[in-house]
Amino acid sequence: MPARLTEYAGMIEDSLAQCFAETPDVPAVLREAMIYSACGGGKRFRGALVLGACAAVGGIERDALPAACAVEMVHAFSLVHDDLPCMDDDDLRRGKPTNHKVFGEALALLAGDGLLVEGLAVMTRTKAQPGRVAASLCMLLRALGPAGMIGGQTLDLLAETDKPDLAGLQAIHRAKTGALIRAAVGIGGLLGGGSSASLAALDKYAASLGLAFQIVDDLLDLTGDLAALGKTPGSDLRKEKATYPALLGLDRARKMAREEIDRALDALKPFGDRGTFLAEMARFVGERQS
Amino acid sequence: MPARLTEYAGMIEDSLAQCFAETPDVPAVLREAMIYSACGGGKRFRGALVLGACAAVGGIERDALPAACAVEMVHAFSLVHDDLPCMDDDDLRRGKPTNHKVFGEALALLAGDGLLVEGLAVMTRTKAQPGRVAASLCMLLRALGPAGMIGGQTLDLLAETDKPDLAGLQAIHRAKTGALIRAAVGIGGLLGGGSSASLAALDKYAASLGLAFQIVDDLLDLTGDLAALGKTPGSDLRKEKATYPALLGLDRARKMAREEIDRALDALKPFGDRGTFLAEMARFVGERQS
Repeated sequence: MPARLTEYAGMIEDSLAQCFAETPDVPAVLREAMIYSACGGGKRFRGALVLGACAAVGGIERDALPAACAVEMVHAFSLVHDDLPCMDDDDLRRGKPTNHKVFGEALALLAGDGLLVEGLAVMTRTKAQPGRVAASLCMLLRALGPAGMIGGQTLDLLAETDKPDLAGLQAIHRAKTGALIRAAVGIGGLLGGGSSASLAALDKYAASLGLAFQIVDDLLDLTGDLAALGKTPGSDLRKEKATYPALLGLDRARKMAREEIDRALDALKPFGDRGTFLAEMARFVGERQS
Repeated sequence: MPARLTEYAGMIEDSLAQCFAETPDVPAVLREAMIYSACGGGKRFRGALVLGACAAVGGIERDALPAACAVEMVHAFSLVHDDLPCMDDDDLRRGKPTNHKVFGEALALLAGDGLLVEGLAVMTRTKAQPGRVAASLCMLLRALGPAGMIGGQTLDLLAETDKPDLAGLQAIHRAKTGALIRAAVGIGGLLGGGSSASLAALDKYAASLGLAFQIVDDLLDLTGDLAALGKTPGSDLRKEKATYPALLGLDRARKMAREEIDRALDALKPFGDRGTFLAEMARFVGERQS
């Protein structure tokens, strides 16, 4: 794992803990359920992308920290709802029981809703030029909304009965996982004060990174082990899900991931040394085991 | 029903339909599930409060129309999630089958999430002074969040096993239903350009209105009939829920509702004729049968 990722993850973890400390009127068990899924776990991949993109355009990471927390909170929302019995019905996440296994379905539903709303509220508290904060919030809402992540989860659901081809699978992932990764990078670039040319280059990077991320995710579900993943591998296979390796075979899926990572690295050229961390993240996606 | 409420409801209904027409990349079934719960039903009580409060401070209702739609969309989100099997497990809402009865649990969950995100996105598109739009969005997020509606739903859940006293019941409703009603009125006042004195008076009105609304809701669950309510009456009694009539008796609960409505009317005095509609709404709450 890149050393800077560990450093960024620590900053995000501390800042998230503070976000939850500042909400006195929240019922204790709801706060507990929200903290359970938002704090103390995960690589902080998306939050780190916010900070890294901010740095790539010459901004100060600390200014983008609330936005990084916001992105991690809404990501946690999506995981909690995705794990619910009526969705993927998963028991394990990041090596521990899923939210509804610990708190029950009703509270998990509410904790997810709460993480979404609170994440957006944290976003509005970002200290930056108001126009850029507003644009960041719009970008996040678009990435989450019915044409973004929530739409992608719907497509994923429909794909259970109507198996997609490669183009269909890419459409699912562009919305389901790609949109939030792109938003994370875009928000970092916006808050860091990036020019429109920089933002366009960052978006190219993020689109390829998001696709590579998903292909590797599919590969790990086939070839990874429980201890490293923190969740049960082979679940895609059991659910007969459409995945890149299922559609392309292992070798072609691996090649496609490598090509997307190369494309992501290419897009970073204009940033020179400032893009080092984002490049490390791309290579990390290619090599990750969990 | 006040004639102006019917007129406002028509404006909101048209504008909501347009909101959904403008989202081309949304999976058809998700859009359908969202429209099912957001359009073509309900009194548009909260949306009308946004428009009425805007008018009370001398603003132009049409400018607050996106905000009124946003409030109705996030209200629809709360109903869809609240009706889910893991929550209240209700089969009927506004006289028709609940969302999950028609679309299944997974899609209902996603449609609820989608209505929340899209409602907030519509809010950001309100054309008004940017500072007032940002403040309105913050007000809405606070009303929805873990210290507002979502917190209230949690308290309501906890109250099933640990029966609250009157103070506890009021705390539940202040958060669960009161917060969004107050936000609706506050947002209308903000977008209409209200002074801080006007906003304070409106907030007094809204706090009493919200409380009266809930007491009457409890009374109707006891004394209303299915045809008028559009949902099965007596469900609170069956679930042994803490309600105002259960805690106070019918007569004292009715008296309390009347007192809160008087208080709401009192708070409107500074607005003179411009407050007429909000006053009609308060009287309507006292007399409503559904």
